[in-house]
Amino acid sequence: MNDSPEYLAKKAFFDKVLTIYGRNAVMEALKDEDVTIHKLHLSKSNKDASVLEQMKKIASKRGIEVQYHDKSSLSRISKNAKQDQGVALDIILEHFGDEKDFISKNTNYRIIALDGVTNPQNLGMIIRSCAAGNIDAILLPTKGAAQISPLVIKASVGTLFKMPIIKTSNLKETLKHFRKEGASLYTLSSHADKSYKEQTYSEKTIFVLGNESEGVSPAIERLCNASIAIPMQRGVESLNVAVTASLLAFL
Amino acid sequence: MNDSPEYLAKKAFFDKVLTIYGRNAVMEALKDEDVTIHKLHLSKSNKDASVLEQMKKIASKRGIEVQYHDKSSLSRISKNAKQDQGVALDIILEHFGDEKDFISKNTNYRIIALDGVTNPQNLGMIIRSCAAGNIDAILLPTKGAAQISPLVIKASVGTLFKMPIIKTSNLKETLKHFRKEGASLYTLSSHADKSYKEQTYSEKTIFVLGNESEGVSPAIERLCNASIAIPMQRGVESLNVAVTASLLAFL
Repeated sequence: MNDSPEYLAKKAFFDKVLTIYGRNAVMEALKDEDVTIHKLHLSKSNKDASVLEQMKKIASKRGIEVQYHDKSSLSRISKNAKQDQGVALDIILEHFGDEKDFISKNTNYRIIALDGVTNPQNLGMIIRSCAAGNIDAILLPTKGAAQISPLVIKASVGTLFKMPIIKTSNLKETLKHFRKEGASLYTLSSHADKSYKEQTYSEKTIFVLGNESEGVSPAIERLCNASIAIPMQRGVESLNVAVTASLLAFL
Repeated sequence: MNDSPEYLAKKAFFDKVLTIYGRNAVMEALKDEDVTIHKLHLSKSNKDASVLEQMKKIASKRGIEVQYHDKSSLSRISKNAKQDQGVALDIILEHFGDEKDFISKNTNYRIIALDGVTNPQNLGMIIRSCAAGNIDAILLPTKGAAQISPLVIKASVGTLFKMPIIKTSNLKETLKHFRKEGASLYTLSSHADKSYKEQTYSEKTIFVLGNESEGVSPAIERLCNASIAIPMQRGVESLNVAVTASLLAFL
């Protein structure tokens, strides 16, 4: 492992970069002054189009670097040759970071950790509700779960650019780390004694929400300190995961 | 207007009937013992398929009448020739009714009225959250809004069959009727003084939620008694309409 300051600074930078693609998604981000942009990538094979001219105009006005690539290089950047339409954009997500960074800067917090939420619409809605509500960060695994994509950005209605997100390649280890730092972890269960409204929460609270059909995985559940219930009428057994996240965000 | 008891009884019956179509949706409903079924419709032009055999078997076991139609009659029943796959099913929604019926049976209530929610996913999620939460009925316009469809049933995760829904062909007149009966109407507004948690609600409360992008229409807004705010962080301006409905359902 390379721990040189240069390497770490570079890593911290690239951890915040999100590459989006497709002409509509790129155009929307370019137009949004709240979005910090690193670089616009265009394929040399693009035919002239007014939307491309407009992109270049905005880039020049905003002082954004434009790079031209052959088609295959562009698809390596977009990682989606089928849908990039010859256009990709590197966005800097100022509020993205890793757990160490978050822990060093926050003493009281509420986090929502997502253990395998796979539907991009749900992820976008969760980001929107957490950004609007009282959640300080979303903990998002980089594997086995929906990733930040143009669909997610759309469903988040632009709030992705405002919401602190902690990415982790190993949710279990990251949650263990948070526990060691004094955080309490809560899962939802219809069998829990305490309602989510009655529970007294720790100053450092993490709500762990599971996959849409499977729920929280057993290994993650074992790490949790307590489970809480959302009481439901009419024998309904569960809520949409984005709705659950929203109820917790607006506790 | 025909007001004979026979006519009214027939109308009350057909107000509760929902015809769904498509082999998967029909099969799911047939298998669900909680769903009351009126009739299974099959096209004579259907080729033999094991799923059709299974449908007939379940129908016979559950004592459900099976009717055979030529292709064009079946599409008149399903109202969706392109997607019915030669199969339609009349479901009885026991909890569907009209405003008169609801008012005569309820003195204290909380209703969520939907003024032009167009996305079926949102409608399904709203039904699910209202069924699980403390909402006594959903007021659903039959025009200019998403209608109950297989997509909505799916997004409601079966809770549609448990949730009282009042259909109206004229939302404005129905809301006026409720006001005359003593109900108070609340809309959401980021400019409202009172937070939705601080507001004291009337014993007969109707929350009016608007279209995904346009919000509540001006004519409906003028009928409302008060507006309430959901306070939001980070400059976020609005929530998904299903999330808003959920926060109100779990007040």
